[in-house]
Amino acid sequence: MKGHNVLRFAGYTLAVGFLTEIIYTVYKRLSKKSKAKNDTTEVIFFPDSQVACIDYFTKVNGCVARDCKFSHKENSLSKLFMILSKSTKSMDVCVFVLTCTDLTDLLIQAHKRGVRVRVITDCEQVDATGSQVWRLRSEGVAVRTDESSFFMHHKFVVIDEKTLVNGSFNWTRQAITGNQENLLISDNSTLVKEYCKQFDHLWMLYDPQRGQLD
Amino acid sequence: MKGHNVLRFAGYTLAVGFLTEIIYTVYKRLSKKSKAKNDTTEVIFFPDSQVACIDYFTKVNGCVARDCKFSHKENSLSKLFMILSKSTKSMDVCVFVLTCTDLTDLLIQAHKRGVRVRVITDCEQVDATGSQVWRLRSEGVAVRTDESSFFMHHKFVVIDEKTLVNGSFNWTRQAITGNQENLLISDNSTLVKEYCKQFDHLWMLYDPQRGQLD
Repeated sequence: MKGHNVLRFAGYTLAVGFLTEIIYTVYKRLSKKSKAKNDTTEVIFFPDSQVACIDYFTKVNGCVARDCKFSHKENSLSKLFMILSKSTKSMDVCVFVLTCTDLTDLLIQAHKRGVRVRVITDCEQVDATGSQVWRLRSEGVAVRTDESSFFMHHKFVVIDEKTLVNGSFNWTRQAITGNQENLLISDNSTLVKEYCKQFDHLWMLYDPQRGQLD
Repeated sequence: MKGHNVLRFAGYTLAVGFLTEIIYTVYKRLSKKSKAKNDTTEVIFFPDSQVACIDYFTKVNGCVARDCKFSHKENSLSKLFMILSKSTKSMDVCVFVLTCTDLTDLLIQAHKRGVRVRVITDCEQVDATGSQVWRLRSEGVAVRTDESSFFMHHKFVVIDEKTLVNGSFNWTRQAITGNQENLLISDNSTLVKEYCKQFDHLWMLYDPQRGQLD
């Protein structure tokens, strides 16, 4: 009878242990799910009062200029520099106006370290004053443009197919220190996928060998 | 002894019941948390092939025109119509170019049904061809503009302090049926708060009685 009670006790202990395990598993799974939904989002607003120093924020050795005239304080542009310079696989840039030399430098640097850089811009902007398109092309970066009379007016970038940067911000000096602008940064996978799909659609549409019939 | 076993059995049954209750409570709480994090996000891309019919998508009786020349099929503009027409408390519009009469109609309708509508646009756009600023003002909608030589270049709207609509899209007919544009719709509370804050900042900054000293 005593042995029978011991067995029964062991049985109940196992049952309780089993239930505890279930609680823990459910908790863990839902915690993970909850965490996964908690996507990183950030907003940066322009104008900045000063232009951020690209070397200070993106180079391993920082800025070595003796009398650097650019800002070493974190601001909106420095945040954008850091997001773009951390790309490791791909950078899909879809921007209406592209005249900022510093941001173009980051694309060329990324291309040189093996990141697949693709740029889409508006055809009317290619020959505009200060356009960086020819510089990008001469460095081997692939650039495609629409050929319509309308605007390729997007201003978004997808980095490593993981992070979306989207807003009103064209890549110009005026957008940095003059205009009221915004950039929304998100790693929400649903959003990122939608923009990747749109980029791929436009990349195909603007393939020069395709004739842009659509 | 038999009665003792019955008591013990009842005790274990209660313990198992209690643990089951804990599992359910933990599950419920985490499910709720998980749901809360699952913010609604959507992206709409332009151009649309046709202009959506504003009456069909926003009026109770729909479109009554015999030969309506506008589209009754859901597209990007119809989605934007529906988002804007559902405002009940406030609509904060911060858009660089505002020439689209249909979208302006929605602002005036919202204003008339008691929604607090505030519009910020660029000063250089006020007298541009087709600008809707004077029409809005004549209907009693509050419009403020920057007075700088730079652009108030944002293109975002916050509805009921709950939903953000943000992207490259100016409120023009060309943006609807011509350009490549995007609008991101989000009810992520962190994002919405940031844009509300920015709107309030600009609204104060562009107060005509303030003299725009900043």
